[in-house]
Amino acid sequence: MSAENKHFNFYDLVITETTTPKALDKLPPNSITDHMLEIDWTVEKGWGTPQIKPVEPLALDPTSSCLHYATQCFEGLKVFRSRDGKTVRLLRPELNLARLNDSAQRLTLPQFDEQELLKILLKFVSLEARFIKPGSFIYTRPFILGTSTGLGLNATTMAKLIVVLTLMPSLSDKSLKLYSSEPTEAVRAWPTGFGSKKLGANYGPTLKQQLRASADGYDQVLWLYGEQERLVTEAGGSNFMAVLRNKINGNIEIVTCPLDTNLILPGINRRSALEYLRERELDTGVKVLEKRFSIDDLEEAMVEGRLQEAFAIGTAYFVAAVGEIRTPEGKTIHVPVLQTGIVNDLQKHFEDIMYGSKDHPWTVVVLKEK
Amino acid sequence: MSAENKHFNFYDLVITETTTPKALDKLPPNSITDHMLEIDWTVEKGWGTPQIKPVEPLALDPTSSCLHYATQCFEGLKVFRSRDGKTVRLLRPELNLARLNDSAQRLTLPQFDEQELLKILLKFVSLEARFIKPGSFIYTRPFILGTSTGLGLNATTMAKLIVVLTLMPSLSDKSLKLYSSEPTEAVRAWPTGFGSKKLGANYGPTLKQQLRASADGYDQVLWLYGEQERLVTEAGGSNFMAVLRNKINGNIEIVTCPLDTNLILPGINRRSALEYLRERELDTGVKVLEKRFSIDDLEEAMVEGRLQEAFAIGTAYFVAAVGEIRTPEGKTIHVPVLQTGIVNDLQKHFEDIMYGSKDHPWTVVVLKEK
Repeated sequence: MSAENKHFNFYDLVITETTTPKALDKLPPNSITDHMLEIDWTVEKGWGTPQIKPVEPLALDPTSSCLHYATQCFEGLKVFRSRDGKTVRLLRPELNLARLNDSAQRLTLPQFDEQELLKILLKFVSLEARFIKPGSFIYTRPFILGTSTGLGLNATTMAKLIVVLTLMPSLSDKSLKLYSSEPTEAVRAWPTGFGSKKLGANYGPTLKQQLRASADGYDQVLWLYGEQERLVTEAGGSNFMAVLRNKINGNIEIVTCPLDTNLILPGINRRSALEYLRERELDTGVKVLEKRFSIDDLEEAMVEGRLQEAFAIGTAYFVAAVGEIRTPEGKTIHVPVLQTGIVNDLQKHFEDIMYGSKDHPWTVVVLKEK
Repeated sequence: MSAENKHFNFYDLVITETTTPKALDKLPPNSITDHMLEIDWTVEKGWGTPQIKPVEPLALDPTSSCLHYATQCFEGLKVFRSRDGKTVRLLRPELNLARLNDSAQRLTLPQFDEQELLKILLKFVSLEARFIKPGSFIYTRPFILGTSTGLGLNATTMAKLIVVLTLMPSLSDKSLKLYSSEPTEAVRAWPTGFGSKKLGANYGPTLKQQLRASADGYDQVLWLYGEQERLVTEAGGSNFMAVLRNKINGNIEIVTCPLDTNLILPGINRRSALEYLRERELDTGVKVLEKRFSIDDLEEAMVEGRLQEAFAIGTAYFVAAVGEIRTPEGKTIHVPVLQTGIVNDLQKHFEDIMYGSKDHPWTVVVLKEK
């Protein structure tokens, strides 16, 4: 094994606890917790010692690659405390860490040992568990930065893996209003691009469209792809699913953009929802289809009374009903929001896993009190 | 004028000089100079006081937008000292500053006053002029970072404009070997994407292809676009031009990808070269065409003996002859490298402007000694 592949190890973790812990009763909505995790990598020595330390500004050389060439990728996952307050859990964190490595590889950033990082992450989260209220969550943001200096666009020689934890305002129950992008003007991703990796480069360039949508009173952009095809891909930073009655056989179908388009992020909640819905296909008769569909298909389904439900699904929005979609032509697709439909069933299923008293194969327990 | 539009002013510039200036005789190849320029912006107060100060690490909140969502854009321009040592000049810096504002706008980062920044830049560069040897240059890197905190992907509330100056290894005289990308695998830019802006997001994701090209002994990737069309767009971070004899009328033509494809950066050296070559069209009979052409057109021209020259043109590579191009199929397009052709003429023309004793309408004088 060459030095650049030398991995970090949970047993080397160094913890320096803060001497000024934050008061929980007056934290602003997006506050960071007390500590951060930082692990440095160099091509000469591989990964260094993992350190948990009080949150401090990153001191970056002004020529660092991540500030100029977007050599940066990230993950987002939530840490949940059960309603009874006794258990703190993560949901399928191993999938997030695998995806972080996948994103890093796309940028030629170094690979890390996912199992060791998971062990460190569990320790880190347990240290900050006081920030998580019963029946609530905080947000975990692992990210990797290229920190090579000198402004050359070259192979990565230095990098940092960092994890911070932040509070997040609780979600509104209101159904979402989506604003379709105009694919002749702007696309989020393209088939031979990098839209299926969680790179910083996929986010900043969407702000302009997002702000236009917000200014018009919409919650998120519904990203369409293809001037002719007008494929429905993602809703802001979330995946998108629609529940439709099939035009020919009348069956109820859940449709979502397939991964092989390379246009969408392989969402972990997307995957969990698909697994859950497919397990129940035989019972419910509701088919789950990863297939291409367009904004015009959705509009037609609405006109013909076949559009049953739609929802955004992702870490930030969890499972959020969509009530309205603006088409590129400015027409409104009204989407039914049901009290007891598939969206509600999914929400309840996930909430039981996240906030319930029983463990589930998807959950990894951080802390459990007697 | 709202506070967020409050501009900075040259007359407010605060300069803190280093007490430990670097020794010029032992500087590594990509060294940064002694000082940096930093100007902060907030949505509440607009632009703050411009400060030139000793180079120091940037202290960034670990949740800063530029580290997660690639809210970052930059420029690159060189500062030249004349061969006689007496004059230090910039080449069309106003175009770089206008392009920086254009890139910032694409990311919803704040706009700045280009004329005030130019005045500050001239002062800054003059302070660092000792780093520039006669007949040589240093590199100027202005960049803007979104520094909003809290991990929300929202409207920018904080940003920084920074300028650093670095040394750059002198260019080799060797002709370039280019490695064509396979457009069914990876493309740099998309017509409705952001490849025509100088965003960090356009660079990091190209590293993987660049390293593959390097590993095979090539200097840069020649980015093709379109599975069928296989349009020639850019060579690494530079624009690309080819000199061809027209198949039908036998005229000599210089071709380069047009800006309206939205696939290439509107290079400033590209523009200068086109202006110079067009002024001479009547005398030389060489037509300059911004038009779409493919790697297959180049291959056919080579086979038919019509390929005269090719070159990359940009800030980093200046005007560099291309000697060889690998096609996606692995065939080699051999390109003549002439002692006294169009490439050489362009190089001489630019070098006279950059390093000569006479001023030119394109140059902005930083310093002139008697």
